[in-house]
Order: sequence, then C-alpha cells, then structure tokens
Amino acid sequence: MGLLVVGSVAFDSVETPFGKAKDVLGGSATYFSTAASYFTDVRLVAVVGRDFPEKHINFLKKKKIDVRGLQKAKGKTFRWKGKYDFDLNQAQTLDTQLNVFASFNPKLPEAYKDTGYVFLANIDPVLQLEVLRQVKRPKLVACDTMNFWIERKLKELKKTLKFVDILTINEAEARELSKESNLVKAARRIMSYGPEIIIIKRGEYGALMFSDSSVFSAPAYPIESVFDPTGAGDSFAGGFMGYLSSVDNITDANIRQAIIVGSVMASFDVEDFSLNRFKKLTTVEIENRYDEFKQLTYFDDL
Amino acid sequence: MGLLVVGSVAFDSVETPFGKAKDVLGGSATYFSTAASYFTDVRLVAVVGRDFPEKHINFLKKKKIDVRGLQKAKGKTFRWKGKYDFDLNQAQTLDTQLNVFASFNPKLPEAYKDTGYVFLANIDPVLQLEVLRQVKRPKLVACDTMNFWIERKLKELKKTLKFVDILTINEAEARELSKESNLVKAARRIMSYGPEIIIIKRGEYGALMFSDSSVFSAPAYPIESVFDPTGAGDSFAGGFMGYLSSVDNITDANIRQAIIVGSVMASFDVEDFSLNRFKKLTTVEIENRYDEFKQLTYFDDL
Repeated sequence: MGLLVVGSVAFDSVETPFGKAKDVLGGSATYFSTAASYFTDVRLVAVVGRDFPEKHINFLKKKKIDVRGLQKAKGKTFRWKGKYDFDLNQAQTLDTQLNVFASFNPKLPEAYKDTGYVFLANIDPVLQLEVLRQVKRPKLVACDTMNFWIERKLKELKKTLKFVDILTINEAEARELSKESNLVKAARRIMSYGPEIIIIKRGEYGALMFSDSSVFSAPAYPIESVFDPTGAGDSFAGGFMGYLSSVDNITDANIRQAIIVGSVMASFDVEDFSLNRFKKLTTVEIENRYDEFKQLTYFDDL
Repeated sequence: MGLLVVGSVAFDSVETPFGKAKDVLGGSATYFSTAASYFTDVRLVAVVGRDFPEKHINFLKKKKIDVRGLQKAKGKTFRWKGKYDFDLNQAQTLDTQLNVFASFNPKLPEAYKDTGYVFLANIDPVLQLEVLRQVKRPKLVACDTMNFWIERKLKELKKTLKFVDILTINEAEARELSKESNLVKAARRIMSYGPEIIIIKRGEYGALMFSDSSVFSAPAYPIESVFDPTGAGDSFAGGFMGYLSSVDNITDANIRQAIIVGSVMASFDVEDFSLNRFKKLTTVEIENRYDEFKQLTYFDDL
C-alpha cells in the first residue's frame, strides 16, 4: 500500500550529558521515514534548503525512501537546537529557525496520490490538512502534534484531527490538548475530536494505546546507554506505521504489534546521535529486540 | 510459611484534588498487611498509642491479621499529614509526628520467630535490622525505604541491605541511593549493596524488576478515578509478598506474577481514601483485574 509522510527534514544541534552533535541530520520526517523504511515503501514530503548536502539525500535513497516529494527551495534548511539534562525525557529548545519551512507549500507528486497509509508528522496543522487533501482515498491516517500547535493553532489542529484515525501525542501534550489531567479521560476527550485511536507517548515509560474497545500498555526498553533521545517519538511512529502498512490489516492485535515495533525502533534511535544507529541497524537486530520486549513484559496467568 | 511485616500503623490526614480525609487509618504496615491478607497469614509488628481505637484493630483482625506483635504504648499514635496535587505521583508531606514511634523497640512474639517471609516496611533501618535479627531463619527478606533514611542513615541502611534479598524502592529514591541517573545502572549498583532483586516503583508508570538474569516491566492499571495514592507502594508490596509467600517457591516466573498481583492491589488501593477500598474488595475482583493486566500488556509474537 505504501506509506506517505509529511514533516520536517532538518539540521539538528543537540547537547546531552553524554556529548554534542552540531548541524547533524534530523527532522520528524527523516526519523519517521528511516524507521519505516525497514518495513514498507516510504514516500517523503518535505522541504530543504539549498544548503542541504547530497550525502543526506543519498542516505535516504539508500534506505529506499522515495524522495520525489522532497522539495529543494531557495534559502536555508530548517534548523533546531536543543539540550537534554539527565532527565532525558524533556528536551529544552534553545533555538528554532524555520527557514524554508516558513513558506512551505507541500505539493504531492502524482505518484504519491493514491498512498494507502499517511502520517502527518509534527508540523503546522494547516499544512497537515493540505497534504491530506491531496491524497485520494487513504486507508489509514495518523498524525502527531505538539504543544506549539496546541497553543497557537488549536482551531486548525482540531479541524485536522477530524480527518485523522490515529493520534500519537506526548503525555503532557495529551493533557494540554484535552484539558484533562487523568489520561483515561484525556484519551476519551481527544477521541471526541475525531481519532479513534490515541497513542500516548511517555518517553522512558513507554506508550499507552486507547481505542473504543481496548487499552494497551507498552513498556520502554530499559537502556543503559541512552545517548540522544532526539527523534525517538518519530522513530516510534515510523516503526508503528511502517509495520501497519506492511501487514495492511487494521486489527487490535496488529496495532499492538505495531506499537511494540515502534517501541523497538525508538529504543535503537536513542542509542546514538542523529540517525547514526540506523546506518548499521539490521532486521535481525529488530526481530531480536522485539523478542526482548516479549521477555520484558511476559507473565503467566494466575 | 507466613509473612511477617514491621512498619508503621498511623493516623493519616490526606488532601487530594478529589477530597480530604482526616485522621484516618494509615501506615505502611497497615496497607501492607491488609493487601497481603488476601493471600497468606500475616503477622504484624508495629506500635500504636493509647489513642488508637479498637475498631481499627478489629478491622485488622477481621482480615485475619495476627496482631499479637502490635504494641500499645503510652502516648499518641504516629501521625502523617500530606497533600497531593493533580500530579498524583508526588506526595507533599505537610506534617509528621513520630509520637510512640520515636521510642519504638520492636519485640517479636515467640510465635513470630520462625516466619519464612519477612517484609521490612519503610521505617528506620536500625529498627528493620533489629526485627530481622529476631527472626530465626527467614526464607526471603524484602525491604522498603525512602529518601528520609537515605539522607539521614545511609550507613545503617546499607548495613540492613546486606541481609535483604529484595528491595522495593521508588524511582527517584533508587537514583538517590545509587547516585546513578540511569535506572539500569542504578539497579545494578544497588544489587552490589546486597539485594539480588530490585523492584523500582514508578507510580502511575508501573514497576521495573531487575535481577541478575531478568528484567521485567509491569504496567500500572490506567485508572479513571484515582482518589488517593496513599499506601499504593505498601499495598503493592503486600500483594507481592503475600502472593510469593503463598506459592512459597522463588522463581522468576513467580516473581513476575507476584509483581502483577502487587500492581493489582495498588490499583485497588488508590480508588478510595485510606483502606476503604479493601473493606469490600473480593478475591474475584482481584482475579479479574489480574486478567485485565494480562489484556493490557498482551501482544503476539512477530
């Protein structure tokens, strides 16, 4: 069915207690499509500036990601600068330069328009909806967002959510969006905005999935060497949507598996800066870690 | 084999966003023994003052808890006053009155001395060790502690830990005790102090168990109506040790089951103030919620 993602491709500068990385490859769509590429054909929609080097595009191409929807515009690539303290759950944004993203006008290549699975990564909800309108008849639409849009474009975000099946959102942002402190109530409130499934991302505590008929709690893999949490949420979404698109059958059982696959991809992402871990990550490693998640959570019936 | 607990029996005054309770039954040993009483014979060691009403002792007796080790001393019962904001994970202590606990000298009744399972609830590590020395040949010793003792009696705490098989401890306190921010490293460091198994309690995020050969992640049950988190950790420990003592066979599989049983008991505790939920809690409800934990975490192999 193929999987389309619209989001950011960026240069990140990141500081963690374990080191620094300057102007490295980043962006929500980059992490998402790289993680998803292990499972399905990915079509990328994003914009970069003239300063974006060919080597990064070659990295994406090597992962068999379709980059025909990656525009190259006059100006500089989107830049994000952030810092993590020992509490690696919380990024502190030091600087954001929208650059070419400020005037981004996503146009889908003709070949993208009948993609079955769509992920609207964390960008302006107006752009998310514009992309969605260009897809003919998507089978499943998932979306991510953040406090920035909840605070500045709530009306637009709620409009986009009407057309979304699955929302992935951070715990604090779920509370902010729903104005409910209790997560069960928060999820139910957000469902009333449109999405049938809410996946609440909790960083090192894993993820919670709520649907009308099911609740699923996925752990995070306890990692001794978390180097850089940047991209964990997008790698999660990439694994999740990549796997779902590959099985192409939306059942509760498959969604649960997809959430674990997403958690696996996030657990690899944080082991190194930027997308470095994905340069050498193999399918066997992914399968083995999936088994470790099984071991991590298994218990017998009473 | 029986299960012995030493800890506090107290009057609590609690304020949450959902209501208040004044001078209600509380204390670590109270929550622990009540939760454990659903699974095994419990022997309680604690002290109360002359102001402690017979009705509370009758509540414990009704739960078939052996209260021969509950001393009644001249003076007032231990009192704790606390407050929770919407972030129900964190209690704010407003007042602590040790009262009869200040001069508590635990003496085990003769009948208690060959108990197989021992839980040293969160009290002065010197008292914990004193109790342990009076038990003849315990099969399994578990222990809880808190920042108060880590900061004031670290040497004594480490001495006690040498004789402990399982430590249950809050996440932040595990980091404080081990001086490691990473939980995997923190657990390993604490193991070097004595305990072979570390159970890290994470409130609404569940619990993590580390042993030499196994890691287990247990979720918390997503509850819509958390009224009062007081006693959740002790109810967890009570369910955990109560179940282990009932199966009387320390295997990784049984420890995982015991952790889920503990999580079940904690999930009931928080549904009402004080020990009210346990007044009407049935074995069938416990079994059903255990099944719900299974549903909550289950996913297929790839």
